[in-house]
Amino acid sequence: MDASANMKSLIDRIAAGDARAVARAISKVEDLSKDATELMKQIFPLTGRGLIIGITGAPGAGKSSLVDKLALHYRKKGERVGIVAVDPSSPFSGGAILGDRIRMQTLGLDSGVFIRSMATRGNLGGLARTTVDAVSILDAAGYGKIIIETVGVGQDEVEVVKAADVSVVVLVPGMGDDIQAIKAGIMEIGDIFVINKADRDGVNSTEKELQALLSLAERDDGWQPPIVKTIAIESSGIDELAAAIEAYRDFHLRTKSGEGRRRAIARWRILELLRERLVAQALESAAASEKLEQLAGEVASRQRDPYSAVEEIMRGSQ
Amino acid sequence: MDASANMKSLIDRIAAGDARAVARAISKVEDLSKDATELMKQIFPLTGRGLIIGITGAPGAGKSSLVDKLALHYRKKGERVGIVAVDPSSPFSGGAILGDRIRMQTLGLDSGVFIRSMATRGNLGGLARTTVDAVSILDAAGYGKIIIETVGVGQDEVEVVKAADVSVVVLVPGMGDDIQAIKAGIMEIGDIFVINKADRDGVNSTEKELQALLSLAERDDGWQPPIVKTIAIESSGIDELAAAIEAYRDFHLRTKSGEGRRRAIARWRILELLRERLVAQALESAAASEKLEQLAGEVASRQRDPYSAVEEIMRGSQ
Repeated sequence: MDASANMKSLIDRIAAGDARAVARAISKVEDLSKDATELMKQIFPLTGRGLIIGITGAPGAGKSSLVDKLALHYRKKGERVGIVAVDPSSPFSGGAILGDRIRMQTLGLDSGVFIRSMATRGNLGGLARTTVDAVSILDAAGYGKIIIETVGVGQDEVEVVKAADVSVVVLVPGMGDDIQAIKAGIMEIGDIFVINKADRDGVNSTEKELQALLSLAERDDGWQPPIVKTIAIESSGIDELAAAIEAYRDFHLRTKSGEGRRRAIARWRILELLRERLVAQALESAAASEKLEQLAGEVASRQRDPYSAVEEIMRGSQ
Repeated sequence: MDASANMKSLIDRIAAGDARAVARAISKVEDLSKDATELMKQIFPLTGRGLIIGITGAPGAGKSSLVDKLALHYRKKGERVGIVAVDPSSPFSGGAILGDRIRMQTLGLDSGVFIRSMATRGNLGGLARTTVDAVSILDAAGYGKIIIETVGVGQDEVEVVKAADVSVVVLVPGMGDDIQAIKAGIMEIGDIFVINKADRDGVNSTEKELQALLSLAERDDGWQPPIVKTIAIESSGIDELAAAIEAYRDFHLRTKSGEGRRRAIARWRILELLRERLVAQALESAAASEKLEQLAGEVASRQRDPYSAVEEIMRGSQ
C-alpha cells in the first residue's frame, strides 16, 4: 500500500471511531512526523462536532476524580468520551504513565472511553499544540464529549484550557496563601467554577471569597460563571456540573458570543504551530543540528552569549 | 545622545548595580525591543558571578514566604538579593501586581533587594526566555543571590527552574491525590526538597513518602538531595535551607559535575530565543501580520485548517 492509501485508510478508521487508529494518529502529531500535517488537514472537515471541556485547577484539587465521574455521567447517557490529560512533568519520569494506570481502575475497559496522557517530549514538540491536535483527532473520531484535564496553572496549560469550548476551574476549600494570586489568574478563564471536596471545612468562606472575586470581574459576553459544589469521590454534584456545562453551551449558541474567542484560539493555534515548524525547518539539516550543538557547548563554557549564537543559526538558515 | 552612547550608559549603570537601570533593561528584554539583543550581548561578560536559586512547588505551598525569608537571611549577611517571580497567570489579570504588593510589606524599601514579577505578555514573548534574561541582568548588576520563584509546575516553569544553579522543590504535608503525579514530575528537578508548614499534621508521612521516592531515583552526578523542614512564616528552618544550598554549590564546584547540565541549559536558551526570533521575523512585515489575522479569521470560521494556514504563512516568509 502506498503512503496516500495508508493515510486514507487511517483517516477512514478514525472517521469510523476506531480507537487504535486514534492512538496512532495522536502519536503521529506528537512526533510531528512528515504525514502529521497531511493527516490534520484531511481530518479537519470531520471536526467541530464534539463538545470540548477544559478542566483545570491546582494540584490536589481532585481533578482526576472529577473528570472520571463526569466521564461516567456521560457514558450513562450513551455518549462516547475522550479524555486528554496534559502532564507537564518531565519526559524522563513516569508521571503520565502513573496517571493512566490509576485512571484505568475507574474507567477500566470501557470501549466508549478513550484516555491519553500527553507529556512533554523534549524541546521541539509543543505540549499545547499536540494536546489541541489530539482533541481534534478525537473530535473527528466522533467522541461527543472531549475532556482536557490539566495539572497546574502554567502558561501552556492555561492556553490549552482557553482553547476548550467550556472551561471549568476546580478549587478546594482552604488552599492557603497563594490562592489570591491563582484566583486572579484563572478568573477570566473559568466559565464554570467547581469547589470540590465540598465536605471540607472552609467551603462557605471559599465560596464567598470566590463570589466576591467573580462579582468584580465583568465578562464581555455577559455570562455569569456559576459555582458548583462537588464531592467527586462520592459522585456528588456531578449532575449539577454537567447541567452547568450544558447551560453554558446553550448560552453560547444562543448569543453567538463566541466569535472573538474562536478567533483568538485560531490565532494562537497558528502561532504555536508556526513556531514549531520554523524551528524544525531551521534545524532540519545535519549541519544546522551540529551547529546548534557546537554553539550550546560554547554558551555553556561561557565563550559566547546565547543571543549571538541565535544570530549565527539564523544567518545559516537563510 | 545617540543610541550606542545610550546603550553604553545603560550598561554602565547596570554594572554599577543601579536598580532603575536593571528595571529598564528587564522591560527591554520583555518587549524584545531592537536593542535587547545588543544589551544582552554586551552584559554577557558581566554575568556568571551570582548564585541562581530556583524555587518551585505547588500553589499553597508557601513559596513566597519561604523566598522572602531566605532573602532576609542573605540580607543579614550583607548580600544583595534579586527575586524574579514567574507569574504564569493571564496578562489581563492583576496576579503579578498583587504578588508584588503583598511582598513589599515584607521586604519593604530595602534597596539591597530587587523584586520583579514576570507575567505572560501575549503570544510572542516567551515567559521562560524573558525570565532567564532578567536573571542575567540581575547577575550583571552584581546581585549575589538571585532567586527565581515559580507558581505551579507547568512546562515553562519547570524549564526555568532547571536553568537555575540550584533547584529547590517545596512541598507541604498532606497535599492530596495529585501528589504522586507531581512528585514523579519534579523528582529529578529538585536538588533540595523542602517540606514547608512542617508544623502541620502528616509531616512525617510526607517525609517518609518523599524519602522513598528519592531512594528510587538515582542521579547522574551522585548528589543525594536533602530534605529540609521549614515553617517559613516563623523563619524556622531557613538557616538549614541556606546551608543545604551552599552544600550543593560546593559539591558542584568540587565534582565539576555541572557540564552536562550547563550544556542542556545553553541548548534550551538558544532554542527558546530562536523560536521567538523566527516567529518575529516571519510576522515582521505589515503584510504578514495582516495575513495572520485573515487566516485566523478563516480558521475560526472553519473555512480552513490551522496546518494549511501555517503553510501559507511559511510560503510567504521565504
